[in-house]
Amino acid sequence: MKFLIDRIRQIIRVSESEEKILQDLFIEKQLSKGDHFLAENQVCRWLGLIHRGLVRYYINVDGEDKTYYFGKEGDFVCDYESFLPQKASNKNIQVLEDTSLYTISHQGLQHIYDHLKEGDRFGRLGIEQVFVNILQQLTSFYNDPPELRYQHFLDAYPEISQRVPQYYIASYVGIKPQSLSRIRNRSIKKH
Amino acid sequence: MKFLIDRIRQIIRVSESEEKILQDLFIEKQLSKGDHFLAENQVCRWLGLIHRGLVRYYINVDGEDKTYYFGKEGDFVCDYESFLPQKASNKNIQVLEDTSLYTISHQGLQHIYDHLKEGDRFGRLGIEQVFVNILQQLTSFYNDPPELRYQHFLDAYPEISQRVPQYYIASYVGIKPQSLSRIRNRSIKKH
Repeated sequence: MKFLIDRIRQIIRVSESEEKILQDLFIEKQLSKGDHFLAENQVCRWLGLIHRGLVRYYINVDGEDKTYYFGKEGDFVCDYESFLPQKASNKNIQVLEDTSLYTISHQGLQHIYDHLKEGDRFGRLGIEQVFVNILQQLTSFYNDPPELRYQHFLDAYPEISQRVPQYYIASYVGIKPQSLSRIRNRSIKKH
Repeated sequence: MKFLIDRIRQIIRVSESEEKILQDLFIEKQLSKGDHFLAENQVCRWLGLIHRGLVRYYINVDGEDKTYYFGKEGDFVCDYESFLPQKASNKNIQVLEDTSLYTISHQGLQHIYDHLKEGDRFGRLGIEQVFVNILQQLTSFYNDPPELRYQHFLDAYPEISQRVPQYYIASYVGIKPQSLSRIRNRSIKKH
């Protein structure tokens, strides 16, 4: 669990006795390509940390998938909108490659908040990071043309654009796959 | 400052000595209708709690204002995307009515995180609340037709729809003012 402890130590200080608590509360999980970490109408009961692999977040709208977020190595994976209030989710989180994660239950996370000296700080700083990302994505919808939103995708996920089907990326950007092809072709010609 | 302390006590426990710290760190501010709490290219240095009044958040896109959020009594007001990393903002926060706030600096807030027993918990829970709201708004863009996004606005801000110009609401919903009029007229005929 070195990866897990190192990742948490990037955020807060963890004593040796607290390290033991973390090791007891987190569980290793393996998911295969195509599996769901979360399916709609379920409550998101787990927060995961991706050790290896890749996930996409999507919503099903009238039978059509809309991909709106990705998670990669070192990212926490969770539908906070469901996890925080422990309400049923309208989202899906699907594994795009065989993926290994460290997961902790909602209850386990409350234990961390209550029993680690910097537990609440871990929660605060962890959520601050995700929050800033999500805000940038939301304001980009109001603010930016598709070309720029695609550029933001490349900036946010530099190493995964080759690992993700193009129609998922088009969905993330909020355009049709044909429009994404045109943007990519124009971009190639420029460089 | 009773309003401020009561609002914080809705989130965490505050001892009497900690109440004193809060009173020292928060500053009362009065802003007049039309004033800006934050203007673009500034760093958002203050977190505010609205005691009385109303604000809108907007982005300027090619000379056109796009309103994307509102804050009302009891809401914390902040551009977290600028405040958290202390980077220049691309947003504006403008007062729609004469507004009184309690404000705290970025540095003051760090002092709370470091010196109140439940300081980090205050930060964590405060941001969790805002985060869930923002997530609902973001996924609504992918998920919902304008009628439903307008309904979400009415649900989120039941008491302020009469206090806000309709073209700000249209912008929040992501449609033209004429389209909002049609939605409102259809809704009136139904009820």
